[in-house]
Amino acid sequence: MPTDEAQGILDRRAQLRTSARRLHGQGRTRPHELLEAAAAWCREHEVEWDHYGRGAILQDFEAKVADLLGFEAARFMPSGTMAQQIALRIWADRAGSSHVGMHPTAHVELHEERGYAHLHGLRVSLVGPERTPLLAEHLRGLSEPIAALLVELPIREAGGQLPTWDELEQLKFAAAELSVPLHLDGARLWECGPAYGRALSEITRGFASCYVSFYKGIGALPGSMLLGAKDFVDQAAVWQKRHGGNLFSLAPNAATAAMRLDERLARMPLWLERARSMAATLNAIDGVRTLPDVPHTNLFHLYLDLDAERALAARDAVAEQCGIWLYESIEPADRPGTSRFELYVGDAAMALSDEEVGEAFAMLLQRD
Amino acid sequence: MPTDEAQGILDRRAQLRTSARRLHGQGRTRPHELLEAAAAWCREHEVEWDHYGRGAILQDFEAKVADLLGFEAARFMPSGTMAQQIALRIWADRAGSSHVGMHPTAHVELHEERGYAHLHGLRVSLVGPERTPLLAEHLRGLSEPIAALLVELPIREAGGQLPTWDELEQLKFAAAELSVPLHLDGARLWECGPAYGRALSEITRGFASCYVSFYKGIGALPGSMLLGAKDFVDQAAVWQKRHGGNLFSLAPNAATAAMRLDERLARMPLWLERARSMAATLNAIDGVRTLPDVPHTNLFHLYLDLDAERALAARDAVAEQCGIWLYESIEPADRPGTSRFELYVGDAAMALSDEEVGEAFAMLLQRD
Repeated sequence: MPTDEAQGILDRRAQLRTSARRLHGQGRTRPHELLEAAAAWCREHEVEWDHYGRGAILQDFEAKVADLLGFEAARFMPSGTMAQQIALRIWADRAGSSHVGMHPTAHVELHEERGYAHLHGLRVSLVGPERTPLLAEHLRGLSEPIAALLVELPIREAGGQLPTWDELEQLKFAAAELSVPLHLDGARLWECGPAYGRALSEITRGFASCYVSFYKGIGALPGSMLLGAKDFVDQAAVWQKRHGGNLFSLAPNAATAAMRLDERLARMPLWLERARSMAATLNAIDGVRTLPDVPHTNLFHLYLDLDAERALAARDAVAEQCGIWLYESIEPADRPGTSRFELYVGDAAMALSDEEVGEAFAMLLQRD
Repeated sequence: MPTDEAQGILDRRAQLRTSARRLHGQGRTRPHELLEAAAAWCREHEVEWDHYGRGAILQDFEAKVADLLGFEAARFMPSGTMAQQIALRIWADRAGSSHVGMHPTAHVELHEERGYAHLHGLRVSLVGPERTPLLAEHLRGLSEPIAALLVELPIREAGGQLPTWDELEQLKFAAAELSVPLHLDGARLWECGPAYGRALSEITRGFASCYVSFYKGIGALPGSMLLGAKDFVDQAAVWQKRHGGNLFSLAPNAATAAMRLDERLARMPLWLERARSMAATLNAIDGVRTLPDVPHTNLFHLYLDLDAERALAARDAVAEQCGIWLYESIEPADRPGTSRFELYVGDAAMALSDEEVGEAFAMLLQRD
């Protein structure tokens, strides 16, 4: 049991978390709000249930996203964890090899309890350095062949970094030359369009398969999509069933994605612009550094010269004093006495000015 | 392209499907109706998002169902396909054997693209005859040990048949004696309470683990629950992540299940009573037979002395003439010139009288 004093701090923290304006993400939408919006949208668009993945709401949306991303076919799935294991398994089976490559910070490697090994018997080689994007030279440097290479754009765990356009083209060229199918982890592919100033289908060109997510930047209910050639996607549907992902209906999940996609994509260039101006403001504050220095996308990392424990107490004090909730959680960074967190500049940040945010961070560091 | 005449029949069929009163299931709820109800319920109960399975809406509902079914712990999951493979894998790993047993008509065997083998490397022995429930003698007759036995109550593919209470007790006794963990496929466990006239926790007693479903009899969004001892459920949560089933949020799915569970459970005794009176009426019609003769649960099968193709045309004619949609699909039965379909007696059937239903079937068979 916490002491009375500790409990008082926790209670006050819970209050502040609810009442303060958040910096990260899209702001606070409660379940009933999203469900109400979804109900209205389904009524307006006369949405019917799909039956185990078959139904206009799914196929129309799959066709729309396939077209947007330049793939022949697409399949809506419950999660990216499922979609990406399936993609890797199909490429592995086709190559007759269980050996696949990915960046050391790939979600598949770090956050999925290694389902790729426990369920699919795949062996992974980690390709490229941890803090920067995977490049052609890293692929060319492998001494054992791989059945597929998973490439995340942007790399989330390293502050949303992207390779330059030229580096990306070289990676695609190297993969083609080596006949290694590239699979795109596009959990945040939507955020790459404004970053490269290119159509999404230009970015995906050269990738043999691609996964995208709808609950993150798009703000839908959980849902993902796996894209590729028709025979690839047909095969993926069989694996989706094996995974237990061919649900009786995914209509509500797909409907919320269809409802929000265009509108959110339209806002992303503004979010990127804002991420860059905010990072400039923050990097001018002593004790704050962003990674990268100039954000590649509207997702980047903030490093603080505060240890993680003090950073939490300081966050509460800032919320108390200026009503801004700067981060939810924060983790120790490598250098002792420093910490870091991920910031996604979206609707929430757009409701605050750079000046306000700068003042809040200045206060955060003085509070220490 | 269909001919004009064929297209005319399909169009008329689509109209009738929408306008006629259905015999099967819970009647027609469109996505926006369920989402509206879910939104209102979430607002009223102040439901917050869970975060990857952690949150009051999930844990409260898991605790409620665990208590109802007499298990120590429970985990909400997206699907039964996922839940049951996970249960079998855990028992297999604990036994140090990949060999598990199940009835020849188990869902896991017939309808899941054999994920148990492709993902988990499990080997299955089919236990018991296809048309009747799995009994103690079938388990005792195995000549190779098994890591677990999956038992479905009731067996859907054989008209919702149940073993007698005494037979079930003997099966549990044999499994205990042989130290074989029993896993309960309770996709329709809810329907067994009134059938046995016993508390659900009495039925589940002796099972080491259990899966239940919420989108079938309960009428919620897709969702399942896996129940067992705490260490079993903790392990299952790791496998759920590996399967790609630990979604960002399952709050809407769990909320619709929590919203409807009590109310639907309360109606099931009425549905069973009605299934029995309706079966008596139907068995009196020449050319109609139910399996079983007296339904064990409110789900049973109907056999018609009509081949499947003519049965579809006759269904449309009956819908045209008396406004009742008797079945959605129908499949050929073993005996040439006969066909069969599954009937779930729920809210839809309760809106019709046995007399009306009897007349509709009499007309169906005359129409031939």
